[in-house]
Amino acid sequence: MTGKIVLLPGDGIGAEVIYAAKDVLEAITKKYNKPFEFSSYDIGGVAIDNHNTPLPDETVKACKNADAVLLGAVGGPKWDNNPSDLRPERGLLGIRKALDLYANLRPVKGFKKLLHASPLKEEIIQGSDLLIVRELTGGLYFGQPSERFDNGNAVVDTLAYTRKEMERIIDKAFQSAELRNKQLTSVDKANVLESSKLWREIVEEKKADYPNVTVDHVLVDAAAMKLITNPTQFDVIVTENMFGDILSDEASVLTGSLGMLPSASLAEDGVGLYEPAHGSAPDIAGKGIANPIAMILSAAMMLRYSFNMNEEAQAIEDAVEKIVNQNYYTADLKNDNGELVNTTEMTQLIVDAI
Amino acid sequence: MTGKIVLLPGDGIGAEVIYAAKDVLEAITKKYNKPFEFSSYDIGGVAIDNHNTPLPDETVKACKNADAVLLGAVGGPKWDNNPSDLRPERGLLGIRKALDLYANLRPVKGFKKLLHASPLKEEIIQGSDLLIVRELTGGLYFGQPSERFDNGNAVVDTLAYTRKEMERIIDKAFQSAELRNKQLTSVDKANVLESSKLWREIVEEKKADYPNVTVDHVLVDAAAMKLITNPTQFDVIVTENMFGDILSDEASVLTGSLGMLPSASLAEDGVGLYEPAHGSAPDIAGKGIANPIAMILSAAMMLRYSFNMNEEAQAIEDAVEKIVNQNYYTADLKNDNGELVNTTEMTQLIVDAI
Ligand SMILES: CC(C)[C@H](C(=O)O)[C@@H](O)C(=O)O
Ligand SMILES: CC(C)[C@H](C(=O)O)[C@@H](O)C(=O)O
Repeated sequence: MTGKIVLLPGDGIGAEVIYAAKDVLEAITKKYNKPFEFSSYDIGGVAIDNHNTPLPDETVKACKNADAVLLGAVGGPKWDNNPSDLRPERGLLGIRKALDLYANLRPVKGFKKLLHASPLKEEIIQGSDLLIVRELTGGLYFGQPSERFDNGNAVVDTLAYTRKEMERIIDKAFQSAELRNKQLTSVDKANVLESSKLWREIVEEKKADYPNVTVDHVLVDAAAMKLITNPTQFDVIVTENMFGDILSDEASVLTGSLGMLPSASLAEDGVGLYEPAHGSAPDIAGKGIANPIAMILSAAMMLRYSFNMNEEAQAIEDAVEKIVNQNYYTADLKNDNGELVNTTEMTQLIVDAI
Repeated sequence: MTGKIVLLPGDGIGAEVIYAAKDVLEAITKKYNKPFEFSSYDIGGVAIDNHNTPLPDETVKACKNADAVLLGAVGGPKWDNNPSDLRPERGLLGIRKALDLYANLRPVKGFKKLLHASPLKEEIIQGSDLLIVRELTGGLYFGQPSERFDNGNAVVDTLAYTRKEMERIIDKAFQSAELRNKQLTSVDKANVLESSKLWREIVEEKKADYPNVTVDHVLVDAAAMKLITNPTQFDVIVTENMFGDILSDEASVLTGSLGMLPSASLAEDGVGLYEPAHGSAPDIAGKGIANPIAMILSAAMMLRYSFNMNEEAQAIEDAVEKIVNQNYYTADLKNDNGELVNTTEMTQLIVDAI
């Protein structure tokens, strides 16, 4: 059986890193005899340029028919002043909604060799290993109304959730915690928001279904503090869309190597989408120096979640770990005792290590 | 003319630190011949216990008739399981709304002697000195509807603003920047929220009125990253209520001494409310070891903003700086070469230094 993978390179360094991931997947095919079939579609700025929309119908259709989607990154200064519906991010929000990618998983784990680049003191960041589970298709991002009224003198956005939408992401987080250190932190603002009160009630209800998982509730403002003062206290964090946006980006800089962090966005039974936690980095696009590791590790997540290929995923992760431990590094990192390599070289090193 | 100050001690260490601030203000009276008249009212948990409401009418009335309000802190485990309308935070939200305290100013500046306690590396936190200007009476905190529907199977909160509400906080932030390093960072989520788009437009419009201030726009998720990776890049940050809640708490832990950070909440022409950035710390309440400095520096902010007593405010700030530099410290801090003192001792040292 051939796995059907849609590549959405997008903008900036997106294309550079996505073809790196493809090379790595081809190495997996060779070694483990697991064939993949790739096709490539436009999203984001490049789709605006080519099709006058950030999310062409044929892109959506191809993704729906695939087993998994790899996304590079979207956005860049070229499209920054476009009207809302012609902005690259709309493509990203649109594909999340179209594929019902309700569960965004963002692991944050440092590499020993790279922790020196953390903005945090080593004794604080050392040993941290957390997973943020963010609800991705509800809340303020999609609630209606989201509009101006009173002649443009007032404005409203809507934070809307159904109980079902909350239940499925909370279940996913409990299940993720069961596979890890069995400790779930639910983040909300239950002292202010009605939606957070319902969220907290559902977390409390679900406890009974996952008796091995310990649960605590932390207010979002306190969570923003604790991520910095004591990141090792966390195992799995679950929260709604907007809080998750802020906290997962906050968490992503803690280890000092954003260029290494993957993510997965999952649907209930459908296709999954995998992308690096970093953006399109227009300042270094086209130079061939982008760090492909976040994208490569996203491909590993894809093997694990969409293809159930745990051994193959582990092989990629081990190869990355090995190369990092051999002190090879890309320009976004710093390693005074190491060897600076470009995107192609880093990819080749990882391919060779597989 | 006698300045009328209402004291709202509240819960936990609130009372301990508020009477410390009162002692310091009495030292100011002695030295500068500036008389103050103090009265004390209940808010938060203690008000629930005494009056069955977190915000008694007489408290609101007294605050409205005062020149300024000092608030200790509210909340504690005793009231954590109360129904919403009988929770201590409701008192805080209620007094903000009743006094129309739309502008929350939270300065974050480290003390050289204490920076070693920062979770950040010294080279990153050193020299940071920023002010967060948070909108405090609008947005998700007060927007309607905020309720369940569909038999409790769905829920909605509302992020609502009028143009006027945005304009006044943005003006306040520009004015604050003019008095500082003339650099304003506006934080929003304009790639997703309609309210953020209006916010950004207004910031752009206002630029012309403050030609000396340079302005940039940062998305809230990026701001959460930059506060950690490069806090010195910021001078004044302005943002809406919920983003401000999260970012100001995040910022408050950067210097490593939350117990030193004051805040001011201001109305257009009315009374101002001043409180420490920290909470009621129930774990150490009653022990007499709380750090009174955040509260004392809040009183200094009060002198500056509500009484226009810049010299007197400076005298308090200088006294605090001096005592910290003499290596006196409270139990929340760490200073291996210093002398540990309790709340009363720290207050007396500051009083003596004035
Ligand atoms: C680009 C933007 C709409 C998006 C989001 O806010 O979800 C991004 O910040 C992310 O986290 O993937
Ligand atoms: C207690 C709570 C309602 C309050 C808020 O969210 O505004 C607090 O976190 C604050 O920042 O003053």
